[in-house]
Amino acid sequence: MKDKIQNENLTQPGFDGLGFVKTKYFKFAEPPDHLVLELGKKLGPVTLAYETYGTLNARKDNAVLILHALSGDAHAAGWHEGDKKPGWWDNMIGPGKAFDTDKYFVICSNVLGGCKGSTGPSSLNPAKGKPYGLDFPMITISDIVKAQKYLIDHLGIEKLLSLAGGSMGGMQVLQWVRSFPEMVRSAIPVATGLKHSPQQIAFNEVGRQAIMSDLEWKNGDYYGSASPKRGLALARMIGHITYMSDTSMEEKFSRKLKSGNYNFAFHPDFEVEGYLHYKGDDFVKRFDANSYLYITKAIDYFDISASNALALKSKEENIRFLVISFKSDWLYPPYQSIGIVRKLKAGSVDVSYCEIDSSYGHDAFLIEMREETSLVKHFLSRIYREVGDGR
Amino acid sequence: MKDKIQNENLTQPGFDGLGFVKTKYFKFAEPPDHLVLELGKKLGPVTLAYETYGTLNARKDNAVLILHALSGDAHAAGWHEGDKKPGWWDNMIGPGKAFDTDKYFVICSNVLGGCKGSTGPSSLNPAKGKPYGLDFPMITISDIVKAQKYLIDHLGIEKLLSLAGGSMGGMQVLQWVRSFPEMVRSAIPVATGLKHSPQQIAFNEVGRQAIMSDLEWKNGDYYGSASPKRGLALARMIGHITYMSDTSMEEKFSRKLKSGNYNFAFHPDFEVEGYLHYKGDDFVKRFDANSYLYITKAIDYFDISASNALALKSKEENIRFLVISFKSDWLYPPYQSIGIVRKLKAGSVDVSYCEIDSSYGHDAFLIEMREETSLVKHFLSRIYREVGDGR
Repeated sequence: MKDKIQNENLTQPGFDGLGFVKTKYFKFAEPPDHLVLELGKKLGPVTLAYETYGTLNARKDNAVLILHALSGDAHAAGWHEGDKKPGWWDNMIGPGKAFDTDKYFVICSNVLGGCKGSTGPSSLNPAKGKPYGLDFPMITISDIVKAQKYLIDHLGIEKLLSLAGGSMGGMQVLQWVRSFPEMVRSAIPVATGLKHSPQQIAFNEVGRQAIMSDLEWKNGDYYGSASPKRGLALARMIGHITYMSDTSMEEKFSRKLKSGNYNFAFHPDFEVEGYLHYKGDDFVKRFDANSYLYITKAIDYFDISASNALALKSKEENIRFLVISFKSDWLYPPYQSIGIVRKLKAGSVDVSYCEIDSSYGHDAFLIEMREETSLVKHFLSRIYREVGDGR
Repeated sequence: MKDKIQNENLTQPGFDGLGFVKTKYFKFAEPPDHLVLELGKKLGPVTLAYETYGTLNARKDNAVLILHALSGDAHAAGWHEGDKKPGWWDNMIGPGKAFDTDKYFVICSNVLGGCKGSTGPSSLNPAKGKPYGLDFPMITISDIVKAQKYLIDHLGIEKLLSLAGGSMGGMQVLQWVRSFPEMVRSAIPVATGLKHSPQQIAFNEVGRQAIMSDLEWKNGDYYGSASPKRGLALARMIGHITYMSDTSMEEKFSRKLKSGNYNFAFHPDFEVEGYLHYKGDDFVKRFDANSYLYITKAIDYFDISASNALALKSKEENIRFLVISFKSDWLYPPYQSIGIVRKLKAGSVDVSYCEIDSSYGHDAFLIEMREETSLVKHFLSRIYREVGDGR
């Protein structure tokens, strides 16, 4: 815990990182003008927001794709002009860091269905001349990955040195291996599993219900008017409980009161309540409620546990895995990561597994930098050396 | 798990239990006409709904008080005319059962602040001639227990053979010992703790926010018009996730779909979602949203962890304890029960502790009958024998 590197310490861009970065946009369509989605619908044209850090080498064999979680975006590292903090995984990505931008070309793309520059329910529906809303088609993790594949093609990369991501990012890692194994040398799924469990589905569903119960949601047709802020904030509050652990909440808040006014009804008077309200209200400023619905549903539909395709394809393409979990993560508990490891081992795939002893719960994948850095750095170096040897 | 005795098997009243029972009502007031509450406000007159099973013996030393959890009521056992299932702890209370009504006089009272016949926010405020709503004063577990004390006095009982309850019921058990140790011979706190943790507070707070975000809530002034059904149902859905365990949800639902219609947006298509919706909708029919707010707040304020009064008074009065927890209960985890045991042991109090190996999560206290029965039966017999010996 004392190893926590706090973003707050980075008081200025470029202090130990990438300095200023900019989001780029890639617009594409399968012939003639759409992406064919897993569930049969068509969507197009599609834009993906993405960022890149470091330089693609001449052999184009040093590219690492970073996949983000539910509320993440393309801005994984470095600083945007005017921002008070750097990208969401800045402590892992940069010169000398785990994903060392002196060696690797790091790419992070926002997901399809998102609201941070990529095509999603808040985007303009060209057929109707207004935002999609619920006319946006249902998407799956497989669709999200398929869209990213077009971006990787566009960048001229035939094979990724590695893929890495936590939570829903980890699902994308696994789906990438499933969908495009020939484009992958190694994979780092963090704090994730082969399928979404009923408890995980249940938490997503109460979040969705919070949004859809908000009268401002208006069946998703709220763009241009008031948005379902209270519902989305509540969904985020529920989420945040599941991202922390009983222990980390006790350490951070215990039963401390926000104020001494003990006798006033139903104000959030405990610090933990104030924190959740703050997180909820903050989230509303940067996220779209419909994107929350679509992306959580894509997560809930994720299930690659039944078939052996992941292991078979990984073995065939000699894809190496580093699987990481966190002891106190009760949302994506270690047993789910062990499930990935078992499946791969049963297929004689090369897998390293580490359960990091953290009290931060699911959030640990964004916090436990020292151990993650050590694991990832060593793993990537090994893979990168082998690329050189094999050449 | 195979030991689960399903209420569903009891297809008719009296099959193996108490037959038909009726709720009684006790109306009282401290002189001149109110109850003085812990936070200083006055409330009165107060009515408590209660039920009794078995017979109070001539010595009045065989009385056991059962305390209910958040959504419970006075109807702990037996059948009400026309009901499809018996009281909430019927599998524990009755002839030959854990709380053996052939031997003991069992009492269960609805809590102050509730909505099942006791004075609460939906009751008539005599000062205004309409339901209290948010004019109802904030109450604490200590107030709930104080009101019950008047009921026990009214029944002519000077000393309770035992007190038992799970979850919030367990808090009342502990508070009874704290407030009226001279009236208690033994205590059975189940699946509870000495204080509400920040994670537990957080789950209550998102439930409260779900209710208060519902426009039908109208600052608690909804009586006589539409009630905040969606909000209350959502609060209950959130609650139900915390009452089960990851394992019990996997065993009950896994990823089974309610229907094959995979491609329709945001309907609850997984069985686990359907279950939560059913539980939420069902709850709305029998519970008042304002009671949910008041009672959860009383729970959140519960904290008797700081002082040694519980142990000191228990030692002084020679109160014996049976503390029970459940392995998979992550809402009131075994470490919290162990905290009670440690506190009592440090004061040389006579405590037995058992962690039952169940996969049912917090709900286990309502389900794991065989082991609970064995523990409670043996414990109560011991205490009751000692009463006899000491006479």
